[in-house]
Amino acid sequence: MIIIGEKINGSIPRTGEAIAAKDEAFIHELARKQTAAGAHYLDCCASVTEGELETVEWLIELIQDESELPICIDSPNSQVCVDAMKFCKKPGMINSVSLEGDKIDVVFPVIADTEWDCIALLCDDKGIPRDAAGRIEVFKKTMLRAEEYGIAPNRLYIDPLVETLGTNDQSLLTFVETCRAVKELYPDVHLTSGLSNISFGLPVRKMINIGFLVLAMNAGMDSAIIDPTNRDLLGVLFATEALLGKDEYCMEYIGAYRENLFGPIKA
Amino acid sequence: MIIIGEKINGSIPRTGEAIAAKDEAFIHELARKQTAAGAHYLDCCASVTEGELETVEWLIELIQDESELPICIDSPNSQVCVDAMKFCKKPGMINSVSLEGDKIDVVFPVIADTEWDCIALLCDDKGIPRDAAGRIEVFKKTMLRAEEYGIAPNRLYIDPLVETLGTNDQSLLTFVETCRAVKELYPDVHLTSGLSNISFGLPVRKMINIGFLVLAMNAGMDSAIIDPTNRDLLGVLFATEALLGKDEYCMEYIGAYRENLFGPIKA
Repeated sequence: MIIIGEKINGSIPRTGEAIAAKDEAFIHELARKQTAAGAHYLDCCASVTEGELETVEWLIELIQDESELPICIDSPNSQVCVDAMKFCKKPGMINSVSLEGDKIDVVFPVIADTEWDCIALLCDDKGIPRDAAGRIEVFKKTMLRAEEYGIAPNRLYIDPLVETLGTNDQSLLTFVETCRAVKELYPDVHLTSGLSNISFGLPVRKMINIGFLVLAMNAGMDSAIIDPTNRDLLGVLFATEALLGKDEYCMEYIGAYRENLFGPIKA
Repeated sequence: MIIIGEKINGSIPRTGEAIAAKDEAFIHELARKQTAAGAHYLDCCASVTEGELETVEWLIELIQDESELPICIDSPNSQVCVDAMKFCKKPGMINSVSLEGDKIDVVFPVIADTEWDCIALLCDDKGIPRDAAGRIEVFKKTMLRAEEYGIAPNRLYIDPLVETLGTNDQSLLTFVETCRAVKELYPDVHLTSGLSNISFGLPVRKMINIGFLVLAMNAGMDSAIIDPTNRDLLGVLFATEALLGKDEYCMEYIGAYRENLFGPIKA
């Protein structure tokens, strides 16, 4: 599983406050803790209304003070995403494109001849297709555009998008159906997702998020945008890898436990 | 999901001590708490070397002091299982038969013309078949015996048996394959399992047990022998029902939360 640490995101209230207050120590700590918790990428989303590029630059520098991990540049503004690439010491990931507007035309040509990866959401100018068939249509079009630009499938992280379970009880089933179809069409693409949308508005969201993580991994999801310092979530993630037969003799599971990544906190 | 409360089992050290000490209050409390936590059956296993039937009678009376729930009579000795049926105020479940020895011949004729249900383990005199195909052979033979005795498929709870993940990393996959085949052959049989074998010998067993519960439910398991007072496990169980599209508008999930069955304990 490729873990994208989600915590450096201005839309998370506490992180937003730290960004507004230019609290460098707080950002440093988020970078350090997520790195220690085993993240493979660190998401970086300013979520500010003015001066986004400067804020992203500031965040990236702070992250790179503390971590060698590649950065996942996260903005609804594709131009900000590509403009911020130059602040990064090594290739990372763009979060995200979709068939909405000109996102692909802004991002794909810039990353084409680089080692940057890219998250692609399965939505377009009409929003999120209700059913799996509609999302697969968006996926196929996305892959045609990637091919045009010579971007290999294994550089793309497809997010099938998940709706809130409280208002759509087919939400997970649609997600799973989309995952399976994506993997059948292009076995080399990655599948990713944030976890929190599914549980929006429901009590004890953690329960829904954990169930979703397990079922999505079972459907082929090989990456997730999560808080790696959430020990229960991380423990279930390692457990699910082992249960799905991807962890010989549970060595990874036991290793992560020994590294104190989940379970009761060891002094 | 049909929940069989597992806690009144002498092989659990604290319960074993209470049985040895004839601690009626402790057994009463286990019955009361599991009933309040939403169990549908209460398992009753003496796990003593001498005077098993008398101990089972004592336990059943204590359970019935506190709970209206049907009892799941649990013994490796099939004769004890059928002899204890008369202590129960209402039909319950026998735990368990298998193709081992004469278990089926002891139990099936006695329950045939009753409303008692029965758990059937997919093993025989040679032990647990290593692969799913072997377990399916045991299953087919079990169903032929049930048919002989006129026991309808929906009265049987098939336990495909799960090996320890630490020594067999295909354990869950074999379990899932067996579940799917069982449901394809006889859609009306129930599938059940204890959760703890899978995680034996591994650290933070709860993580593995939770992942297993979710994946087993996804494979069609509609019953589980668990501790219903384990709030995290119960929360994930309700969450998974909702995720799998079996809980319209998450009403059951929200209802269980409001009844204080999972999530932070409400005063």
